[in-house]
Amino acid sequence: MRERRHSVPVRLGNVTVGGGAPVSVQSMTKTDTRDIGATINQLRCLADAGCNIVRLAVPDLEAASALSTIRRQAAIPLVADIHFDYRLAIAAIEAGIDGLRLNPGNISQPDHLRTIVRHASERSIPIRIGVNAGSLPHDYQPGTSLPQRMVSLALEQVQMLEALDFQHIKISLKASDVPTTIDAYRLIADQTAYPLHVGVTEAGPPICGAIRNTLGIGVLLYMGIGDTIRVSLSGDPLMEVDTGKEILRSLGLMSAGASVISCPTCGRTSLDVSTIATQVMERLRSVTEPFRVAVMGCVVNGPGECEHADVGIAGGEDKVLVYRSGTFKRSVPIDQASDALLQEIDSALSVRPAETSEEMRKNV
Amino acid sequence: MRERRHSVPVRLGNVTVGGGAPVSVQSMTKTDTRDIGATINQLRCLADAGCNIVRLAVPDLEAASALSTIRRQAAIPLVADIHFDYRLAIAAIEAGIDGLRLNPGNISQPDHLRTIVRHASERSIPIRIGVNAGSLPHDYQPGTSLPQRMVSLALEQVQMLEALDFQHIKISLKASDVPTTIDAYRLIADQTAYPLHVGVTEAGPPICGAIRNTLGIGVLLYMGIGDTIRVSLSGDPLMEVDTGKEILRSLGLMSAGASVISCPTCGRTSLDVSTIATQVMERLRSVTEPFRVAVMGCVVNGPGECEHADVGIAGGEDKVLVYRSGTFKRSVPIDQASDALLQEIDSALSVRPAETSEEMRKNV
Repeated sequence: MRERRHSVPVRLGNVTVGGGAPVSVQSMTKTDTRDIGATINQLRCLADAGCNIVRLAVPDLEAASALSTIRRQAAIPLVADIHFDYRLAIAAIEAGIDGLRLNPGNISQPDHLRTIVRHASERSIPIRIGVNAGSLPHDYQPGTSLPQRMVSLALEQVQMLEALDFQHIKISLKASDVPTTIDAYRLIADQTAYPLHVGVTEAGPPICGAIRNTLGIGVLLYMGIGDTIRVSLSGDPLMEVDTGKEILRSLGLMSAGASVISCPTCGRTSLDVSTIATQVMERLRSVTEPFRVAVMGCVVNGPGECEHADVGIAGGEDKVLVYRSGTFKRSVPIDQASDALLQEIDSALSVRPAETSEEMRKNV
Repeated sequence: MRERRHSVPVRLGNVTVGGGAPVSVQSMTKTDTRDIGATINQLRCLADAGCNIVRLAVPDLEAASALSTIRRQAAIPLVADIHFDYRLAIAAIEAGIDGLRLNPGNISQPDHLRTIVRHASERSIPIRIGVNAGSLPHDYQPGTSLPQRMVSLALEQVQMLEALDFQHIKISLKASDVPTTIDAYRLIADQTAYPLHVGVTEAGPPICGAIRNTLGIGVLLYMGIGDTIRVSLSGDPLMEVDTGKEILRSLGLMSAGASVISCPTCGRTSLDVSTIATQVMERLRSVTEPFRVAVMGCVVNGPGECEHADVGIAGGEDKVLVYRSGTFKRSVPIDQASDALLQEIDSALSVRPAETSEEMRKNV
């Protein structure tokens, strides 16, 4: 994995984006922002799931005026998504919003943009320039590639803000097509030091959308590109957060937390690995410290994986081998596998963290 | 995206792996191989879903003897997964299997390995050396990194086969950890010209397992590494195939087929994008030629995406804009959005392919 690209940090409330800060996970409320109760509820769910920053659409002044109540109730930084109307940006800033997503090119009058920037500067509120392949101006730089056009448009808008002496900037360059998205971010990565908000947009419903986002975000993060990420799915925003966190965990960019290693099963297995693994994931939902459970169907790879897990089971011919802290402990009949494993997990978690060998995991 | 790594082709039945052939998608039956009916049924489902190669566990002679009946009924190449017992390999070859997955180091007697290789040579059956991080020998090359140990073990086993003048070889190096998997394949990529079977193993249940596999496989394919892929999930093997195909499609390594672009929705939307997008995906399941549908909640990015789609809708304030072949056609009330879109899709598909502009899609 390449070293992370150097970027200049910006702050949204208590979250730093860029400058070597941990990669943050973003999502967006899908409620009507004017429905204050529903929006606050969804924000709470997102924060509980580990979302770091949430964006809200602000399509009109009624939505903007809902923001101050929503802001007071929210535990994490909020970003207002603004298009076309500068008054919405001003109202959002006055409501206490922590960041703006706003394309300067969308604000037609120069003095309107100047007003927004003055307000944002006074409160040190960053602005994300969010270029989207689906809304490039018609006939913009014909003859150049789409990623190149996205980058040019973003850099033009950066200059509009810099010309007003504003530098609390983040940039995103989203397309619904994975290679286009990757190319655009790779192109801009060397041309600016502003932090990059990375994602694939309009990716469709899960699981298809999760795959497209994981590819785009994953390849870029592997190349060291990306300071904050948004998985975009047509569906529950909690899935966006879960997917984003799993991407970071899987690439070692976030503390591992609890994880389940489980085999795909095959004709060698009489153990119901899929059901047991799902039960274990449910049991580990609230476990935040590193804890690894292996659910393995047979003795080909089972003992090996169990030796590198805090707790594990490996199916044998007519019984199941139970492991604890990497060591074989006992065998039980197959129909007791799930109970034995869950018992062992509860017992291991009750004596942690003293018992867990961090070394054991490192050796995997 | 980097150019694909050069590899020497091997053939399994009518499928070529490596040597510039299209990246193939593999899965594995999860039925008891001895249950011939259930196994044939699952094979049929996998082939219908677009799986190119299927592996079956062969844990005993009864499973091996089921293979000839299964083989005769299967429309795609089959690989026998063999461990420890050389007689199972011989029986599988005699049953007409198209490939073996077998680690020479697992076969304790040299003359047993020689017998397997002679049979495989006679029928030009390739052998995949499948090194798995979970089953490395204890105390193997202590002090070196896990990816390095996996590569060393694979190359040692390659030499065992080459010493017997056998070169129909594929290699896999799977770990449950994504960076370990990527590192191992990157290490071996320059050290051998044999085709690489790529995957992340014991990745857990979907969606977590799909994300880990997409990351590992996706980053490697983006680097040009990988001739055939297996997504490994604790769950329905059809999901493995769907995930594998979506990875290839999203990276442009497979004909696009039908695709749905749909926005994540936000407080700007009154359209039920998620439900409509899911309906559209269902409608397009059987469409194999390129066909793009956009389901967009609002006018910020909606018209732009619709202009690059065969059919699309974009939500407006109290109505929905309907697009066909990139051009605005009409608007309908929001509650008729789904019907209007599905009608337009049916109409577009009924006159294809004459109407579709390939150029339109290229311009995206």
